[in-house]
Amino acid sequence: MRHIRLLVEYDGTGLCGWQRQANGPTVQGHLEAALAQLLAHEVTVTGASRTDAGVHASGQVASFRTERTIPLHGIRRGLNSMLPAAIAVAEAAEAADDFHPRFSATGKHYRYLLLTRADRSPRWRDRAWHHRGPLALDAIREAAGALLGEHDFSAFRAAGCTATRPVRRIDQIDVGALAGEPSVVALDVRGKITVP
Amino acid sequence: MRHIRLLVEYDGTGLCGWQRQANGPTVQGHLEAALAQLLAHEVTVTGASRTDAGVHASGQVASFRTERTIPLHGIRRGLNSMLPAAIAVAEAAEAADDFHPRFSATGKHYRYLLLTRADRSPRWRDRAWHHRGPLALDAIREAAGALLGEHDFSAFRAAGCTATRPVRRIDQIDVGALAGEPSVVALDVRGKITVP
Repeated sequence: MRHIRLLVEYDGTGLCGWQRQANGPTVQGHLEAALAQLLAHEVTVTGASRTDAGVHASGQVASFRTERTIPLHGIRRGLNSMLPAAIAVAEAAEAADDFHPRFSATGKHYRYLLLTRADRSPRWRDRAWHHRGPLALDAIREAAGALLGEHDFSAFRAAGCTATRPVRRIDQIDVGALAGEPSVVALDVRGKITVP
Repeated sequence: MRHIRLLVEYDGTGLCGWQRQANGPTVQGHLEAALAQLLAHEVTVTGASRTDAGVHASGQVASFRTERTIPLHGIRRGLNSMLPAAIAVAEAAEAADDFHPRFSATGKHYRYLLLTRADRSPRWRDRAWHHRGPLALDAIREAAGALLGEHDFSAFRAAGCTATRPVRRIDQIDVGALAGEPSVVALDVRGKITVP
């Protein structure tokens, strides 16, 4: 059985997040529907992160299994011709049988964007949270320091959380305006994942 | 008579460009309709550049005249509450009577974005032209050098062009990938305008 790893990019504006839903378009739902059409069998796609509605991804990792012999570039191109404009596959690769997008991840990078000016911005409307005024970046940097390292995030877990342990490590938090966009502040949060 | 200068930002994706049209939404058309509602009189808005359909702006300069005494922040906020999400006003200021968005301009900056990878990108779909493969950036830089300085652009004029002279000066052309987006190449073209 082949195991295929995908690198998926999406604009989450009109999507109800990653996870398949009975009602409403999702990334997983679109990928599974396109793969079922391409491969002519039912497919379950596993993702590295279940992003929320409106969240975008530049490199979401996902995988699925198939016995079809269609080459990798055929999978990538086929998917990109069938998926809606909001979703695309940037890479398709053979993966080891025991690869898992979530459990094999060695690190994650989340970027949070904030528009910090009085007026709304047409160019950032679906990409940044609007905070109507400047932010104290030094104070945010100082507070972010308290999150670095290993911490127990039990208080932030959802009731049905299936993670085996609540301890997570954050290695780096960068806070600063985007190049050429002085009113857009990025919070870049990076963590490596250590096997317990 | 007051003369008000606006700094306008827009996402041109769903718009038919700057210039007012009988059919189809335009930036000028939306601004004039919103101003007519705000000021309760007909308004003509003049812009610095008549951008085409699909072109975005981070700092288009425009102006209009009125005898209303509504304060500048009221004009800015009022317009932003009435304009569609694709258009916003970032600044409103009093301008000299002889100010003209086009003829008073001292310089312009146009940015052209190209996506240079095999697959389409959901995040850049309405923001970059898709060239399916890498570009020879050094060759582009070398060719761009031939455009620097003053040149007669008569051959590029439209039949009905109203400009008084066809000579334009380009001062700087920068070619390079965007920070953090190695497959997106920006061509930044800047020119100062010298009074003849």
